[in-house]
Amino acid sequence: MKVLSFGEILLRLASPGYTKLFQKDSLEATFCGGEANVAVSLANFGVQSEFLTVVPDNDIGHASLNALCYFGVDTSKAFFKNGRMGLYYLEKGASQRPSRVIYDRVFSSIALAEPTDFDWDKLFDGVSWFHWTGINPALSDNMVQICERACKKAKEKGITISCDLNFRKNLWSSEKAQKVMSNLVQYVDVCIANEEDADKVLGIKAPNNNVESGKLNKSGYEYVAKEICKRFGCKKVAITLRESINASHNGWSGMIYDATGVARYSAHYNMDIVDRVGGGDSFTGAMIYSLITGKNDKDAIEFAVAASCLKHSIEGDFNRVTVSDVENLIKNGGNGRVQR
Amino acid sequence: MKVLSFGEILLRLASPGYTKLFQKDSLEATFCGGEANVAVSLANFGVQSEFLTVVPDNDIGHASLNALCYFGVDTSKAFFKNGRMGLYYLEKGASQRPSRVIYDRVFSSIALAEPTDFDWDKLFDGVSWFHWTGINPALSDNMVQICERACKKAKEKGITISCDLNFRKNLWSSEKAQKVMSNLVQYVDVCIANEEDADKVLGIKAPNNNVESGKLNKSGYEYVAKEICKRFGCKKVAITLRESINASHNGWSGMIYDATGVARYSAHYNMDIVDRVGGGDSFTGAMIYSLITGKNDKDAIEFAVAASCLKHSIEGDFNRVTVSDVENLIKNGGNGRVQR
Amino acid sequence: MKVLSFGEILLRLASPGYTKLFQKDSLEATFCGGEANVAVSLANFGVQSEFLTVVPDNDIGHASLNALCYFGVDTSKAFFKNGRMGLYYLEKGASQRPSRVIYDRVFSSIALAEPTDFDWDKLFDGVSWFHWTGINPALSDNMVQICERACKKAKEKGITISCDLNFRKNLWSSEKAQKVMSNLVQYVDVCIANEEDADKVLGIKAPNNNVESGKLNKSGYEYVAKEICKRFGCKKVAITLRESINASHNGWSGMIYDATGVARYSAHYNMDIVDRVGGGDSFTGAMIYSLITGKNDKDAIEFAVAASCLKHSIEGDFNRVTVSDVENLIKNGGNGRVQR
Amino acid sequence: MKVLSFGEILLRLASPGYTKLFQKDSLEATFCGGEANVAVSLANFGVQSEFLTVVPDNDIGHASLNALCYFGVDTSKAFFKNGRMGLYYLEKGASQRPSRVIYDRVFSSIALAEPTDFDWDKLFDGVSWFHWTGINPALSDNMVQICERACKKAKEKGITISCDLNFRKNLWSSEKAQKVMSNLVQYVDVCIANEEDADKVLGIKAPNNNVESGKLNKSGYEYVAKEICKRFGCKKVAITLRESINASHNGWSGMIYDATGVARYSAHYNMDIVDRVGGGDSFTGAMIYSLITGKNDKDAIEFAVAASCLKHSIEGDFNRVTVSDVENLIKNGGNGRVQR
Amino acid sequence: MKVLSFGEILLRLASPGYTKLFQKDSLEATFCGGEANVAVSLANFGVQSEFLTVVPDNDIGHASLNALCYFGVDTSKAFFKNGRMGLYYLEKGASQRPSRVIYDRVFSSIALAEPTDFDWDKLFDGVSWFHWTGINPALSDNMVQICERACKKAKEKGITISCDLNFRKNLWSSEKAQKVMSNLVQYVDVCIANEEDADKVLGIKAPNNNVESGKLNKSGYEYVAKEICKRFGCKKVAITLRESINASHNGWSGMIYDATGVARYSAHYNMDIVDRVGGGDSFTGAMIYSLITGKNDKDAIEFAVAASCLKHSIEGDFNRVTVSDVENLIKNGGNGRVQR
Amino acid sequence: MKVLSFGEILLRLASPGYTKLFQKDSLEATFCGGEANVAVSLANFGVQSEFLTVVPDNDIGHASLNALCYFGVDTSKAFFKNGRMGLYYLEKGASQRPSRVIYDRVFSSIALAEPTDFDWDKLFDGVSWFHWTGINPALSDNMVQICERACKKAKEKGITISCDLNFRKNLWSSEKAQKVMSNLVQYVDVCIANEEDADKVLGIKAPNNNVESGKLNKSGYEYVAKEICKRFGCKKVAITLRESINASHNGWSGMIYDATGVARYSAHYNMDIVDRVGGGDSFTGAMIYSLITGKNDKDAIEFAVAASCLKHSIEGDFNRVTVSDVENLIKNGGNGRVQR
Repeated sequence: MKVLSFGEILLRLASPGYTKLFQKDSLEATFCGGEANVAVSLANFGVQSEFLTVVPDNDIGHASLNALCYFGVDTSKAFFKNGRMGLYYLEKGASQRPSRVIYDRVFSSIALAEPTDFDWDKLFDGVSWFHWTGINPALSDNMVQICERACKKAKEKGITISCDLNFRKNLWSSEKAQKVMSNLVQYVDVCIANEEDADKVLGIKAPNNNVESGKLNKSGYEYVAKEICKRFGCKKVAITLRESINASHNGWSGMIYDATGVARYSAHYNMDIVDRVGGGDSFTGAMIYSLITGKNDKDAIEFAVAASCLKHSIEGDFNRVTVSDVENLIKNGGNGRVQR
Repeated sequence: MKVLSFGEILLRLASPGYTKLFQKDSLEATFCGGEANVAVSLANFGVQSEFLTVVPDNDIGHASLNALCYFGVDTSKAFFKNGRMGLYYLEKGASQRPSRVIYDRVFSSIALAEPTDFDWDKLFDGVSWFHWTGINPALSDNMVQICERACKKAKEKGITISCDLNFRKNLWSSEKAQKVMSNLVQYVDVCIANEEDADKVLGIKAPNNNVESGKLNKSGYEYVAKEICKRFGCKKVAITLRESINASHNGWSGMIYDATGVARYSAHYNMDIVDRVGGGDSFTGAMIYSLITGKNDKDAIEFAVAASCLKHSIEGDFNRVTVSDVENLIKNGGNGRVQR
Repeated sequence: MKVLSFGEILLRLASPGYTKLFQKDSLEATFCGGEANVAVSLANFGVQSEFLTVVPDNDIGHASLNALCYFGVDTSKAFFKNGRMGLYYLEKGASQRPSRVIYDRVFSSIALAEPTDFDWDKLFDGVSWFHWTGINPALSDNMVQICERACKKAKEKGITISCDLNFRKNLWSSEKAQKVMSNLVQYVDVCIANEEDADKVLGIKAPNNNVESGKLNKSGYEYVAKEICKRFGCKKVAITLRESINASHNGWSGMIYDATGVARYSAHYNMDIVDRVGGGDSFTGAMIYSLITGKNDKDAIEFAVAASCLKHSIEGDFNRVTVSDVENLIKNGGNGRVQR
Repeated sequence: MKVLSFGEILLRLASPGYTKLFQKDSLEATFCGGEANVAVSLANFGVQSEFLTVVPDNDIGHASLNALCYFGVDTSKAFFKNGRMGLYYLEKGASQRPSRVIYDRVFSSIALAEPTDFDWDKLFDGVSWFHWTGINPALSDNMVQICERACKKAKEKGITISCDLNFRKNLWSSEKAQKVMSNLVQYVDVCIANEEDADKVLGIKAPNNNVESGKLNKSGYEYVAKEICKRFGCKKVAITLRESINASHNGWSGMIYDATGVARYSAHYNMDIVDRVGGGDSFTGAMIYSLITGKNDKDAIEFAVAASCLKHSIEGDFNRVTVSDVENLIKNGGNGRVQR
Repeated sequence: MKVLSFGEILLRLASPGYTKLFQKDSLEATFCGGEANVAVSLANFGVQSEFLTVVPDNDIGHASLNALCYFGVDTSKAFFKNGRMGLYYLEKGASQRPSRVIYDRVFSSIALAEPTDFDWDKLFDGVSWFHWTGINPALSDNMVQICERACKKAKEKGITISCDLNFRKNLWSSEKAQKVMSNLVQYVDVCIANEEDADKVLGIKAPNNNVESGKLNKSGYEYVAKEICKRFGCKKVAITLRESINASHNGWSGMIYDATGVARYSAHYNMDIVDRVGGGDSFTGAMIYSLITGKNDKDAIEFAVAASCLKHSIEGDFNRVTVSDVENLIKNGGNGRVQR
Repeated sequence: MKVLSFGEILLRLASPGYTKLFQKDSLEATFCGGEANVAVSLANFGVQSEFLTVVPDNDIGHASLNALCYFGVDTSKAFFKNGRMGLYYLEKGASQRPSRVIYDRVFSSIALAEPTDFDWDKLFDGVSWFHWTGINPALSDNMVQICERACKKAKEKGITISCDLNFRKNLWSSEKAQKVMSNLVQYVDVCIANEEDADKVLGIKAPNNNVESGKLNKSGYEYVAKEICKRFGCKKVAITLRESINASHNGWSGMIYDATGVARYSAHYNMDIVDRVGGGDSFTGAMIYSLITGKNDKDAIEFAVAASCLKHSIEGDFNRVTVSDVENLIKNGGNGRVQR
């Protein structure tokens, strides 16, 4: 059971601790990306995980692939091309001060990639699940085409497709996103979203919901999921329910909706946040793992939420936990007693 | 609109993270000081900010001024003189363990400065606001005289004077403070105080208030502010209202009182504290900015409290936020959602 | 009044901050151990504190003793022997993610020590209090014998004996622990335990108590303490009451039970945790200090709980606070106001 | 006497110590650039130093200017524009392993700047010396035009122009460089070059010289300097003479040639290298300082070489030494005895 | 062309910079080992590189394998077994102070491995080169048997065998080494040795050579190589020629001897040492690469020496250079000019 | 055989690596001092070593004593007094850039100490060697008296007295030093000096010697030693012979002169310097050790020079080597081969 994730890998340059950017003269430098994070989660759960990307053929590009190989992700399908390594600057928030992300990803190798660079028939060889996110088509018009061709070929080959809508307002407008994604999401079997994606990417808004307030409205989310299934033919919609109390504390839970009309909710966690970036991706990775391994919806949403809850307690984008770490949280709760 | 802040700049030697002093063999070394912190806040808000101080003519003295130049503070009025760079050791507290400050500022260049070193007529050239704090006259008897001459000249020139009472029990006794400051505060237009300053520095105590308890009493603070205006002729009194739950969590709000008898209160923030030192100074800096730019009292106190709330989430004494960061908190609240 | 603590000193290799083990390529490397931590607490409280251990005669063994000398602990009774320096890997937890300890202490010098290596008559010269913990006999069968001989000799010489039950499931089984410790605890005057020790080590279980739930049951603990006194003839039993909310927040209080049937409880603290490891040992150290200096039970439990509360706010196993730090918390509460 | 330096400011991301890029997960992050380094040197020597650049209007752009303000460089003529902050990755070499620089500066704000963005008449107000380097026109065709306009206007206003040829093979070809620079250098009064620039940028090659061999040939350099003066009308040519023994050890000296035909050589230094990057710029900064302050050629070349020798012993691109540091080396030689 | 390296992977705990062990309270923690280092070199040169080892099934064991996966080494043949992760403490020397290694590798998983744990027929599937070192049989008597079975099976399958003699006096005596290795080396095709191995491991001593003196004697080394070929039937012997001037400076060159009687010498490098540990392994890795890719002896020794020369300039055991880095040194020499 | 060293303990605040002071915002913070360094050397060599000093009764003062206790130095004679912890800022030099020390030690507790604070009769109880340096009387006029009283009492009690002349031009003038020290040195049995001390402190200058040149003149040093013995009655004079090539490389050797007229010279070392500060003190400590343990002059000077040679290769003021480390260097030379 091989999963192919496809997307950009980025260099993350984060100011240390709770300093502002450039307050100190060093930056934490790690590699990550919405789809790469999913690939790492899957590898850590023991799934055969492949990552397809395009990077420059220099020390930075090579290091980015090595960073995935570390976890056992297979990067042999990735290739090199002119262009830069995309990167982002991260300033971690605390309390009332929000985390800040400044993208610097123009002219990246993947944004410059061309449809003819990808032989999807070959790339999908042996693959049974294909994962991509809404960031991909936001990178360039070429990438819109590339994603469409990939989805078509995957569909043709009977490969399950998952997509995290992942709206990024600094990459494209909501209008463009809706136009592009409305077309692409129709190929998607499992759609993952957070509290604002459905609105910005698909134009589906729950009545009476207010994301900023930190209050969540269950029926609103069910409405959104139902609409996604109805309009785009998705089989399942998984939604993370984040209550943003402040940058240091969040409520966390999730819901999975089956096109047959059943919604399942996970337990709820009050999280003290160590590193919030990559939280959604860790949910997605764990959800794919759950569905691949045949968990039912209830167990799947519990696993995905528990896994991503743990991610929030670890530095960096990657979720470095194992299946047994997650199961331990589900079973024993998060009382945090020392394991020795 | 040029603001001149006057005071000592200090080297802050802090143990890293939550270690005790000398638990590790390195110290975080940054420059700061009650008045310097205000000057930096003002520069970050786009105000023409000058800083007047006296430092030794060695690598440490020069570095201290450079640290302010970094933010665009104009230090060209500062001068060199024999004496040491004053410094303090800081051990950051957590939970029930309080932060600890150990001063080592005797014999500093500014404490050795003499009244004749200052040509206030020239120093005030082009200045429309003069800021100093109660730390200055606590440094030496010379500084008492220097502050008095400065205040007189400022008054003469129609310059607005602000003063943060800033009582430091390790620099002088409450008795001496009261004797000296009762004279100096009569020149002050805008008086800034925290929960214990008015009592220790001016001998004004709210009936039935208990600072240590962490409970705040609004009417008590209004009484204090009213008394300050009445006794010393101040036009406005701004007070920070800190609820000390423990070293990691504080409640935070503020009040501004106009001599006409109106008190305005800010929103209240529950803060997870990253670095508490400099919190009061960031309030003062933001308050001066607010008054200079013509905000009304309600908007001024909201701005000052929001700005200083953000400061508590950043490492170091300086408040490294911009006007738009503060306005964003006021407008959107502190839900801490990632900005990207 | 000299206290001799006896046990293993270990190298603690901890991943930095909230990273997973080996996420970064450095480890914090400090020395510690259940009994060594007690010895350090005692030295910091001004007690004449001796530490007896066995280490390899290499740079690591020597450094471990130096680390105790730093605090004024007298290590002149410690000796060298073939074998390794025992160590453990520590990954600090946060929020729902528990701290993880991986022991690597087989073949340590102390585990290889033989009964004939110890001349207890000489080792106890001038000693009035002997402290050891349930970790010792878990290290090797030799150590069971060594502990027994030590206890017998101490008894013979009228030395007070304290023991922290300190169950470690990775060192021995509950069955073996019960068999061994039932014999050894009969020599103990002051028995220290946490929420699970009595059950695992002595087979005494409070009716209707659920450790994992984070809920505490006072009558249950009194039952346990009473049973320990009854079965083993202990004079006092001190129990830490930890409410594990998550890895970042714990409730903390304690109880001391006198064999005459009186239980005294301390104040209760809500702790934001900096470093939880060594928390119990800091309780024990402070309890021994309290009893040595003649505090009554109420004052003793307040002191022990306040001291160990402070420990949780400091990096590392050792409690680096002084008597006045503890008294300050007891007197002023943990509001965390800056001390300057 | 105000000097305006003009060029790109870059973020330098260097792997720590002697690790390879991304061997550790942090990068040293400082700001620098060929012309910015000169501006900092000048400010450190007490010259009124201005820096003109174009940066993005985000946290990175602002931080880059602050980094210059720290040293007292006046950045008020710099302006903001869309585009990225250019950056480069640096891996510091040692022994036989060379330092490696990987540029990532496409699409930078300054490369996107347009000729009409610059009002040179106003920008040169009060300026008496204008410095730029051969990197500028390599950034974009717009920059070729901008440099030409600047030079013309400077000439018109009687401003002395200095230019460091600074060939960068990754920014443009030698052919293009020669075409562009042959035109621009005719405006230059003081031309600075290193061992390969004259060849690659101006097509002037000393007969029988072999740069790679680490052997230097005095007559060859005099030939080159003479040719530059002859062909382009420069008044002075200053050349650094670097003997590359390996990445840790270099010989260092310099020559200044006056168009009247006299060459002056400096003392020679055997350098143990701490950080080689910025070495040439520190020579240029010190040379401009020397000429501005009226030193004769012999003293100028001694000062410039001594200053840049010291730079090689300091981490980072900037030369953080003062005039007295340099004079001390010239006077006492580099015996390195502790100054206390 | 697949190479299987077999041996122990170790945790290397190094004191930072030039501090003594435990002078600071952190240790650099990386994974390495004589055979693992070779596997990494090979992967970095683009060879299909497999590593066979045995580690404990815990976070440390898993991290050790991930550290190799990072470079693309295939660890799928490695397996888990009870026992510890072997480790060593490293204190880096400088000038007259030697580097110091303290082993702590007793009871490691690989030392506890049993002959029946290895199905060599399967393990050698697809393998054309087998590499092991003299450390393996020094780990345990089981490992002696395991190595012998491996060698026999490799021989049987026509796999080329290389062995680095790698004498470690703290693991076994010279007597035991000679007894064991005399048997095992007869299976070896390519024997790698340094200045003392042949003497201590095989009892072959060059007449009139003095290792400690730092002086090298060519004819002596040729004698040793010739003897090895003669006595054990090796086809090639490669020897590193290290001149130990002090811990910071070494001379470095190498020789390869063909059983036909021809010795080839490499260029000689004067190295400023960054990290000497792993230097020999990087020679071996590069030598295997050279022979696999069909280089003649002269080119092979040049490549192996240049590659390992570069390793000495990089922190850590692993040689992180590429083929083109090595070729660049061979072609251009080590003048260390910045590559940009 | 107990040695009492007496002097100031200082906080050393050093910029990290080869950065300039305040280039980074942290400082390495360790404790040291000319006499404390000697006490640590002695403890590391196994001598009973006591240290007498005066420090402030705060966290810094306590930490300074703990730092000595770490090595087993007995600090029980040290006492607390008002005043500051003296400190110095250190910028480590490299190549042609000299190390720089900026003292900040006015008003230190020891400088404020009074003669009546010291009961020398009691302080010398059990002591057989007394060590102090020329820094002591430079601290205050009180300290001149205190040193004189100490010397008289030591003489009276038959205690051997050693003194390192240690001239510090920033603490006093050569004139004052000569006046004070000429009196004090007459009590000294073993006088230690470096290349400039004899001249500045005692007014004894070797004919035709030039310290700055880095060239040494044996007969000059013998002349100086002879004069010291003659004028002040010293029994032995030990002199370090440092050739300052640059801040990274020094030649190092030493001479001991016996009043009977015999001079003995040590081997000569070419040192790559890691940390030069404390080099002289490590010579003194090793010399005292040598004389105490009865080495003859030749062996003593070899030991002292070898020990201090090793110190130059270790970070920090303290010499952290053992007797066997030194003997190993003497026996095997400094070829720096890895010890494993």
